[in-house]
Amino acid sequence: MNTESSSLLVRDIGEQGLLQILQRFCPQEIIGDDAAVIATEPGQSLVVTTDVLVDNIHFSEITTSAIDVGWRAAAANLSDLAAMGASPLGITVGLGLPGDVSVSWVEQMYVGMTQCLQQYNTPIVGGDVVRSPVITIAITAFGQAYPQQIIRRHQAQVGDAIIVTGVHGASRAGLELLLHPEKGENLSPEATKALIRAHQRPQPRLDVLPILWQILGSSQLAIAGMDSSDGLADALVQICRASNVGAVVERTQIPFPPAFAHWLTPEQALEYSLYGGEDFELVLCLPKEPADKLVQMLGQGAAAIGEITNGSTVVLHDQKQKFPDQVLSLSQGFQHFG
Amino acid sequence: MNTESSSLLVRDIGEQGLLQILQRFCPQEIIGDDAAVIATEPGQSLVVTTDVLVDNIHFSEITTSAIDVGWRAAAANLSDLAAMGASPLGITVGLGLPGDVSVSWVEQMYVGMTQCLQQYNTPIVGGDVVRSPVITIAITAFGQAYPQQIIRRHQAQVGDAIIVTGVHGASRAGLELLLHPEKGENLSPEATKALIRAHQRPQPRLDVLPILWQILGSSQLAIAGMDSSDGLADALVQICRASNVGAVVERTQIPFPPAFAHWLTPEQALEYSLYGGEDFELVLCLPKEPADKLVQMLGQGAAAIGEITNGSTVVLHDQKQKFPDQVLSLSQGFQHFG
Repeated sequence: MNTESSSLLVRDIGEQGLLQILQRFCPQEIIGDDAAVIATEPGQSLVVTTDVLVDNIHFSEITTSAIDVGWRAAAANLSDLAAMGASPLGITVGLGLPGDVSVSWVEQMYVGMTQCLQQYNTPIVGGDVVRSPVITIAITAFGQAYPQQIIRRHQAQVGDAIIVTGVHGASRAGLELLLHPEKGENLSPEATKALIRAHQRPQPRLDVLPILWQILGSSQLAIAGMDSSDGLADALVQICRASNVGAVVERTQIPFPPAFAHWLTPEQALEYSLYGGEDFELVLCLPKEPADKLVQMLGQGAAAIGEITNGSTVVLHDQKQKFPDQVLSLSQGFQHFG
Repeated sequence: MNTESSSLLVRDIGEQGLLQILQRFCPQEIIGDDAAVIATEPGQSLVVTTDVLVDNIHFSEITTSAIDVGWRAAAANLSDLAAMGASPLGITVGLGLPGDVSVSWVEQMYVGMTQCLQQYNTPIVGGDVVRSPVITIAITAFGQAYPQQIIRRHQAQVGDAIIVTGVHGASRAGLELLLHPEKGENLSPEATKALIRAHQRPQPRLDVLPILWQILGSSQLAIAGMDSSDGLADALVQICRASNVGAVVERTQIPFPPAFAHWLTPEQALEYSLYGGEDFELVLCLPKEPADKLVQMLGQGAAAIGEITNGSTVVLHDQKQKFPDQVLSLSQGFQHFG
């Protein structure tokens, strides 16, 4: 962090002054023209995704520092690329800023973005900085993928196993602990820290892709999938809807964070896991054999949670017959305009 | 326009309802996944540019209808691609919207964007719609270009001719006529309409590129250039600064809109042309012979306005010696945070 600028406001240095500071976060050979130029590899398609984040709607100073805002914004976009089976090439950042935002807030936000991006050697290749009455961050991420390896929602086949990477519900639990620290009094400090970290520093699962390609080899199998950014239930319903299939999900197979067992009721744990959102894990549908291999190689909670059926709904089933079957819907998973 | 939705507000139909309407403006085979997939041609590099527009800062209801807001936003981004020598592949649109914006405003904005984009067969390939206290439009455009044909600011050579496409100052004059219609009383209705249209419906100069490649053939000449979106003076200074050269520009060679001659004083006409901005023309530096051919083939006001020198400033010179030499600076060309 540049301590000299810590008391400066954006309006003190203006758009050009701020651009000069932010350009330090970009590769020097890429910036300085009307657009950025990036080499792509032959035979790969371009994959593009975009997200807009608005202050007090998508993040708040109570739960999210500038550095975490940056990390999460970058992670969400890289997660969309991972969900398509694409390797990241770069991101652009469009910023709307009120004049009274401190320059150091903006710098720290960029530190957070670059910390997340650097794990995947992904540069910020351009952007725009404009005045706005509200902090607005518009990120576009682009990557590349071989056309036959692209993961799509509509490709699920009856009989496919449904695989989830990682655990679900951790981000929602971390948010709860940030908003209501008293709720964590029965948790160990380590467990609390891990859940909060899951919320503040989610990891896009780009690490899954090379493992997936290794398992699939030259089989040219079409994989269905998406990320669980809007919740696991949402991902399951969206994939089934797009593929015109149903699914049965085994309630007891959904991987929770270990701390949930002695902290939440089973109903609460399930609600966080299905509807919490922002875990940025992958939900993938593929035949049983490669699916089993994938779970084995992934670890970190990855599990086969169910199977694609020729039905039209996503049914939550309880092997132990403690709970009745339940049909999952999107209704809890969406935001609405206020 | 969908008349049924004309009285609806964004909050009445929510994010998902609005996304369904906006997806009609996108190619169906591209949307519906976490990211869009676009084929690129082998051997070309990816070229990416991004812009953020905020209500009451970059556009206002007084001068700009929703359809014009959309057109101008698309045109500005395509102009950045043209300035790099790149052919457009697609754009993404990130929208921040207050709940009380009418659905028809958003639809009309998309009509404007697609009208501009369709001229160049460029699709809207994705986007995001979120709640925001202020209308915010974040566009990222991406295109492709052969690496040896990419136009960059830093490539100007001493002795190069400086070519401008089209005329400069029309957009600024059009804005003035929208804000103060009484100033146009000495203008013909046709001239007024043409100037206003230049402001509302600027054309990105993608048409220049095939002509330029035809003239250059296989010569692999590195062309310097940028667009004049921030004003002609700004473009000249930026190119010279990036190329570490100077320039002499002939005052009388700068092409004005024909109506300026019997409407504005020479000083006013020059100010509009140099500092007005948003004409979205191209400023290109290349050797005299191909430069002359380019002017001949372009028409519409295109002109050689000066020459790159081994100096360090952009000097405005008057062949007729009516005005003293003047050094151009960026000072009038920038926006600042309020």
